[in-house]
Amino acid sequence: MATDPTAESAPDTYEEFIETVQRLGNIEAAEGVLKWDQEVMMPEGGTPARAQQMSTLNGIAHETLTSDEMASYIDELSEADLSDDQQAVLREVRRQYERADAVPTELVEEISKTTSEAHPVWKEAKENDDFDQFAPTLENLLDLKRQEAEYVDPDRDPYEVLFEDYEPYLGLDTAEEILQTLRDELVPFVDELQDADADLADPFEGTYPVGDQRGLVREVLDTLGYDWEHGRLDDAPHPFSMGNTFDARVTTRFDEEDPLGALASTIHEFGHAFYTLGLPEEHYGTPLGQPRDLSVHESQSRLWENHVGRSRAFWDYFAPTLNDHLGTDFGVGELYEAANQIYPDNLIRVEADELTYHMHIVLRFEIERDLISGDLDVEEVPKVWNDRMEEYLGVRPDTDAEGALQDIHWSHGTFGYFPTYSLGSVMAAQLYAAAEDDITDLEGKIREGDFEPLANWLRENVHSQGKRYTTDELVREATGESFTADYFVEYVEDKFGDLYGI
Amino acid sequence: MATDPTAESAPDTYEEFIETVQRLGNIEAAEGVLKWDQEVMMPEGGTPARAQQMSTLNGIAHETLTSDEMASYIDELSEADLSDDQQAVLREVRRQYERADAVPTELVEEISKTTSEAHPVWKEAKENDDFDQFAPTLENLLDLKRQEAEYVDPDRDPYEVLFEDYEPYLGLDTAEEILQTLRDELVPFVDELQDADADLADPFEGTYPVGDQRGLVREVLDTLGYDWEHGRLDDAPHPFSMGNTFDARVTTRFDEEDPLGALASTIHEFGHAFYTLGLPEEHYGTPLGQPRDLSVHESQSRLWENHVGRSRAFWDYFAPTLNDHLGTDFGVGELYEAANQIYPDNLIRVEADELTYHMHIVLRFEIERDLISGDLDVEEVPKVWNDRMEEYLGVRPDTDAEGALQDIHWSHGTFGYFPTYSLGSVMAAQLYAAAEDDITDLEGKIREGDFEPLANWLRENVHSQGKRYTTDELVREATGESFTADYFVEYVEDKFGDLYGI
Repeated sequence: MATDPTAESAPDTYEEFIETVQRLGNIEAAEGVLKWDQEVMMPEGGTPARAQQMSTLNGIAHETLTSDEMASYIDELSEADLSDDQQAVLREVRRQYERADAVPTELVEEISKTTSEAHPVWKEAKENDDFDQFAPTLENLLDLKRQEAEYVDPDRDPYEVLFEDYEPYLGLDTAEEILQTLRDELVPFVDELQDADADLADPFEGTYPVGDQRGLVREVLDTLGYDWEHGRLDDAPHPFSMGNTFDARVTTRFDEEDPLGALASTIHEFGHAFYTLGLPEEHYGTPLGQPRDLSVHESQSRLWENHVGRSRAFWDYFAPTLNDHLGTDFGVGELYEAANQIYPDNLIRVEADELTYHMHIVLRFEIERDLISGDLDVEEVPKVWNDRMEEYLGVRPDTDAEGALQDIHWSHGTFGYFPTYSLGSVMAAQLYAAAEDDITDLEGKIREGDFEPLANWLRENVHSQGKRYTTDELVREATGESFTADYFVEYVEDKFGDLYGI
Repeated sequence: MATDPTAESAPDTYEEFIETVQRLGNIEAAEGVLKWDQEVMMPEGGTPARAQQMSTLNGIAHETLTSDEMASYIDELSEADLSDDQQAVLREVRRQYERADAVPTELVEEISKTTSEAHPVWKEAKENDDFDQFAPTLENLLDLKRQEAEYVDPDRDPYEVLFEDYEPYLGLDTAEEILQTLRDELVPFVDELQDADADLADPFEGTYPVGDQRGLVREVLDTLGYDWEHGRLDDAPHPFSMGNTFDARVTTRFDEEDPLGALASTIHEFGHAFYTLGLPEEHYGTPLGQPRDLSVHESQSRLWENHVGRSRAFWDYFAPTLNDHLGTDFGVGELYEAANQIYPDNLIRVEADELTYHMHIVLRFEIERDLISGDLDVEEVPKVWNDRMEEYLGVRPDTDAEGALQDIHWSHGTFGYFPTYSLGSVMAAQLYAAAEDDITDLEGKIREGDFEPLANWLRENVHSQGKRYTTDELVREATGESFTADYFVEYVEDKFGDLYGI
């Protein structure tokens, strides 16, 4: 196993500690491969064996993290004279250790069992369009997650504690402030756009063969700089990316009627994969070689998907490529408009556009926060959901299936995850603005198909840093400012104001 | 994790023991997935991370197997009143434990390091056609493996001990007797065939597109009964199969000029996969749900490849299928003859036919046995190799690359593995003869494309047994006789005598 190069001046304990950390990193990486295989390659009948393999590896990872050995390394190193990088590694592992160690195994197992059982209940309730069928299970999950939060820290808001599972360093205050800004700014802005009654082009009609679309997205990935020596592209029903600095894979999904959907989804997952490919090789398996948390990861996917892939400069370059693969003859303006359609009438988060998407998130955030605190009863969720949809987007779901039952997250016991999607978009805007400041004529370079300057900027300022900095430190190091929604608001107001002529 | 159903009447210790055994089984299954992914899907650049993941899982498997916990379960259960099935599980795990525990970690690591380094040395020596370049490395590997054998059992022939890593229960005496029979019977028989100067049909000319060949092998797999709900077919440079009872995958390799090569190789790997798919689900992860050793595994692949896939009845049924996919118009007789060509002039084991193949194995067996015992010096290997090729097959390699350097096995430190290939063929003949006795008109059923009776016979007599019996017990239970070469000799003399008109 590679020796961590930061260990030169550290005590022997640090080297032993790093070996255990790398062992944990390798188990988690193996789990990643098993999961990728399960989603992309595994024949369906393989499920029972795969579930046992995952459960075994999960157990071993947990034992490794909470071992007496790990505890004593952390104890000893807390008193040691460590370099900044070593301190960062210790900070990350300690945090992971403390959270895992705080929660009793019985509760972990009960949550795991309850979420396994919750999934089919949620699915059936959704099929039957009946929230009440899911309500007792949701109540139970909320109770278990409140207990978990209490074990981690009995003195703090349990939602804050749960949020930190996904975004440990940003602070719920910051997240809340940003989400409020999105709500306050975007709700009236979307109204204005609708009132403008502009008619954006959408030249796609009929169907476009998957083979042609595949050729298109592969060429786009080539041009953006995806390294096929360290990656691959496959189909998956729910696109995702998995990997590490040596092997980061993209999946996508094709719809014959919607080539821009596959393209946007592929570029999004490319952004995730490109992030992990830029992590420092020499730190593979340790926090310095691992991605910062979900909001940063999402900032990378959304930066490429939206700031690059939905820009006019992108279409200046790629319109001929698209026409070539699809046998069409669309103009740059048409494609740019088609890629930036907004659909305020849409009820479904995963089908939402770049702009209204955030209202779907704000509403989920508000509801799950109030559910965990107990300010909202489970039975009231469908009504509150529908009221807020009406308030924020002017549409009201007719059914629970299109309302409070649409997402899988809560059935997984996942509370506090939704905000990271919007935080990622907001961070993408701030990072992109900084890249524009640092790179002479970035737009012009993109228009010529030269993505290298942007790629290098991201590698240097984000990817190569791993978990060296906490999230806000990372943003400040990269942009010179603390995390703020200002750039996002400015970006959407400029882009959509321009497109809709307001 | 599933409870082992055999545990009903056993002490609690047995249940705890089985949990640890299943944990080990799951780690090994995860390693199997990682290996499959590496060979079939992984981008080449992923190697450094994958090597670390494999090394970590290997280490964890070793620790699990040799843990104090495992030792005390084995101790305690050795005194307990166990059922026959439980005794079988204990026998297998104890054997694995004792071998792993006997060899010091330092030696295991040195062997692992030396074999890693040996591979490029062997590869370069082969490229340079210079055995002397590889000789010191081979000397070193032999010495390390002799040490390993001595740790396992200082009182026995070290080659015997090493052979048991691959074939633990058959006994080297039996293997040796069978290989001698093959040599004594086949050498003169091949001479006779050559003298007969028959001219077997080989109607394949030019090239056959890979797409057509792929359609053919998929249809053959369908008809043989491969369960796609639990399997898949992919390309790999060195075809192999991997899996368990829930998920057993086949790989193959296509050559535009040799459609029968891809077909035979696919059927061979199907035989391996079909074996694991027939293991009992309720014992997944324990010895009762795992395949018996290499010779039995190889008996399954060779039974399907040779006794089925190279039979006239097979071609009676599949000739139209082949013609349909390849756009040819070959007769049954032509295809049957083409599938049974022999090539005594061939120097390369992996390109050998069903008959002369075994002379390649006998020669390797004799040489590696004498190398381990010290009766043969490393430097003499090329001359002995070439002399024996001349003696057994009447051809002499001009180069070491086509002689003693052709196979990768010794560079992996693998001594004692080669015999299992021939033992598998011999066992296939014995099993097939028993199936013919038990199934009314098996040949007629195959001629009609009905493979179910044979599949059921193999499932019942071989697959479902897992490691319940030792190898010879398994053969006796299935065939009523101890393992013998008689059926194989009779089979080849009948088939090839008939084809070559002697």
